[in-house]
Amino acid sequence: MTTETLRLPLLYAPFEPAVHPEVRWLEQRAIEWVDASGICAGTAERNRIVATRSSDFWARFVPHAADRERLLTTTLWHYWGFGFDDAHCDSPPLNTRPDLFAALAGRVQRALEAPGSDSGGERYIPALCDIAERMAQAGPPEAFRRFVAGHRAWLSGVTWQIGNQAANRRPGVDEYLAMRLLTSGGDATFAMWELATGIHVPGTEMHHPATRALTEMATMVAALDNDRHSLRKELDHQQSDQNIFTALIQDRQLTLQAAVHEGNRLRDRILLRFCRLRQAVRPRAGQELNAYLDGLCHGIRGNAEWGQRVPRYLDPATGPDGEEPDIAWAEHSADNSLAPLPFPSITWWWDRHLA
Amino acid sequence: MTTETLRLPLLYAPFEPAVHPEVRWLEQRAIEWVDASGICAGTAERNRIVATRSSDFWARFVPHAADRERLLTTTLWHYWGFGFDDAHCDSPPLNTRPDLFAALAGRVQRALEAPGSDSGGERYIPALCDIAERMAQAGPPEAFRRFVAGHRAWLSGVTWQIGNQAANRRPGVDEYLAMRLLTSGGDATFAMWELATGIHVPGTEMHHPATRALTEMATMVAALDNDRHSLRKELDHQQSDQNIFTALIQDRQLTLQAAVHEGNRLRDRILLRFCRLRQAVRPRAGQELNAYLDGLCHGIRGNAEWGQRVPRYLDPATGPDGEEPDIAWAEHSADNSLAPLPFPSITWWWDRHLA
Repeated sequence: MTTETLRLPLLYAPFEPAVHPEVRWLEQRAIEWVDASGICAGTAERNRIVATRSSDFWARFVPHAADRERLLTTTLWHYWGFGFDDAHCDSPPLNTRPDLFAALAGRVQRALEAPGSDSGGERYIPALCDIAERMAQAGPPEAFRRFVAGHRAWLSGVTWQIGNQAANRRPGVDEYLAMRLLTSGGDATFAMWELATGIHVPGTEMHHPATRALTEMATMVAALDNDRHSLRKELDHQQSDQNIFTALIQDRQLTLQAAVHEGNRLRDRILLRFCRLRQAVRPRAGQELNAYLDGLCHGIRGNAEWGQRVPRYLDPATGPDGEEPDIAWAEHSADNSLAPLPFPSITWWWDRHLA
Repeated sequence: MTTETLRLPLLYAPFEPAVHPEVRWLEQRAIEWVDASGICAGTAERNRIVATRSSDFWARFVPHAADRERLLTTTLWHYWGFGFDDAHCDSPPLNTRPDLFAALAGRVQRALEAPGSDSGGERYIPALCDIAERMAQAGPPEAFRRFVAGHRAWLSGVTWQIGNQAANRRPGVDEYLAMRLLTSGGDATFAMWELATGIHVPGTEMHHPATRALTEMATMVAALDNDRHSLRKELDHQQSDQNIFTALIQDRQLTLQAAVHEGNRLRDRILLRFCRLRQAVRPRAGQELNAYLDGLCHGIRGNAEWGQRVPRYLDPATGPDGEEPDIAWAEHSADNSLAPLPFPSITWWWDRHLA
C-alpha cells in the first residue's frame, strides 16, 4: 500500500480552534533561543527543529496564557523535545540500543532535576538545564515537579519502544496503548499547562482519578492522531514503526486500510468518553480545574490542527513549507459506542465511579 | 580481597532508633499476604522474601504511624519490591536484557496506574494491583500519585543499571550517584511516608527544593549504606556489581579497602549536609513537614539498623537467621568538611539558597 491509494478518514475534534495571539512573537523569540542554545549540530538539524513549528503547536494548547515569558519558557521545551527525539530517539545508533539510550535518558533526566549537572559532551543537556532553571523560577514548585515526573515517563516510554525495536518485538494493541501514553510525552506536556498559564489547580482536584483519566484520554487522542499524521511519511520512507495501525494489524490480521479505519473508531470512542466524563466533572470542578479541562480540549484540537499542517509529519514532496492546507473535519464521531474499549490498560477510563 | 581481610568502618547515624510497636503483628499479617499473593514461585522464593524482613525495615521508617491498616498496606509493597528485585532485576535473563526489562517495567508500572491491567502471565502484577488498590483507597491522591512517580523512577534506574551491565559499561562516581538515587527506590519509599502516616504535607512545602534535596540526601545515605551492607556478600559470591566502591575504583584507581574508606567519607559528608540543612529548614517548616523530616531521619537510622542485621545482606554463613548481632556505631563523622562534594549530579544539595 502506498500514500496514493491509502484513504485517511477525516478527524473529529468538536472543539473551537484557538491560537495564542502572540504566536509570531513567540516563534521569533524561540528560534533565537534555538540558535543560541547549542542543540543544533548543523543547518539541517536547525531547519528540522524550526520546521516542527513548536510555537504554533504550543500556542494552540494555551491560547489564553497571560504571561509571555511563561509561554516562551514552556515553548522552548517543545523545540528541545522534538529536536532530542529526532536526534536520539528515532535515529541510529540509539534507536536500537536500549542499553545506551537508558544511560543517556538517565543523565538527561538528572540534568533536569539537578542544577549544575555535567553535560558529558551531550549538546542537548546544557539547553535543558537552561529550560529547567526558567521553569523552576516560574513555579509553582508542584507544577515543576509534575513536569519532571512527566519527563521521566516520556523517556521511560522511549526506552520501552527502543527496546521493542532492538528485540524485534511487535506490541499488540493493549501494550502499544500503555507505551504510547508515555512516548507521546503527554504527562510532560500537560504538566506545562500550569507552568504556562500560571494557574494552579489544587492538588486534590489535579490528582483526582477523574482528572487523571481525562488527561490520559486527551493524551491518547492526540497521540493516535499523530500516528495518523505520520503514517503517509512512514509509508513513503518504508519505516516500519510501532504505531496503532501496526498494533491492530498484529492483533487482528487486518489490512492497513482496515486498520486505519479501526484505529479511527477506537480513537473516536476515547474522545467520546473524554467528552462525557468532562461534562460529568464540570459542575463539581473549581474554576482552575475547569480551565485545565478546557486546556485539554485546546490540546486535542490544537494538536490536530498543527499535525495536519506541520512539515514534520507531511512528506516534503506533498507541499512546500509555508503553504497552509485547509483542513476538512469529520462532522460526527466514527463510532458512537459508550462501552469501554476492551483493552485492560485503558478500560478504567470508563469506570462509572469516575463520573 | 576477601571478606576476611576487608575492614568496614562503623556507620555514623546520629538519630535515635525507633521501631513501630506493632511490628510483630505487621510481620504476621504481611507474610499471610505474601503467601496468598501468588508472587512466590516456590518455597525458596517465599523464604527469600520473608527473609527481607520488610516489616522490620518499614516499621523503623514510620515508628509512629497511627493506623495499622495504612502501615500494613505500605509494608506489603516492600515485600513485593524486594521480591521483584530479586526475581527480575538481579537475576537472569532480564538482568542483562534492557530491552525485555524495559517492556516488563512498562507493563508493571501501567498495572500500578490502571486498575484492571492484564498480568500477561507475570506473577508479580496481580499482587501489585492489589497493593495499588489499597493505596488508592488510603489516599490522599497526591501521595499516591507521588508514589506512582517514584515507582517509575525506581524502574527507570533499574533499566539504566541493567543497560550498563549489558553494555559492560562501568559508571564513574557522578553517573553512579545519579543512577543510585533511582535504583534505591527512595522516591517510592519516602512517598509512602504520607500513605503510611496519613499525614499530608502541603504541596508547596513538600515540593520545595530544600525538601527535595533533603529527601534525595536521605535516600543517598541509605543507598550507600546498602552498598556497604551487601559488599561482603557480593565479594563472597564474586559478583562484580555496580556500587559506590567499584565506581570510586573506576574513577580513582583505588584499592578496594581505600575505596571503602573513601565511600564512607563521601557518605558522611552527605549526612552532615543533611543534618545542617534540616536544622536550617526546621524553624520555617510547618508541623507536617517537620514530621516528614523526622521521618527521613528515622529512614536513615532504620535502614542502617535493618541492613546490618537482615539475612538479605549478610552471608548466611556468618550467622544463623534469628540471631541479632549487636551493632557498634561510629561516634563521629569520618569527614567534617562542609564543602560541596565535587559531583555535579548532587552538588546542588549544597546550594546556599536552599537554607
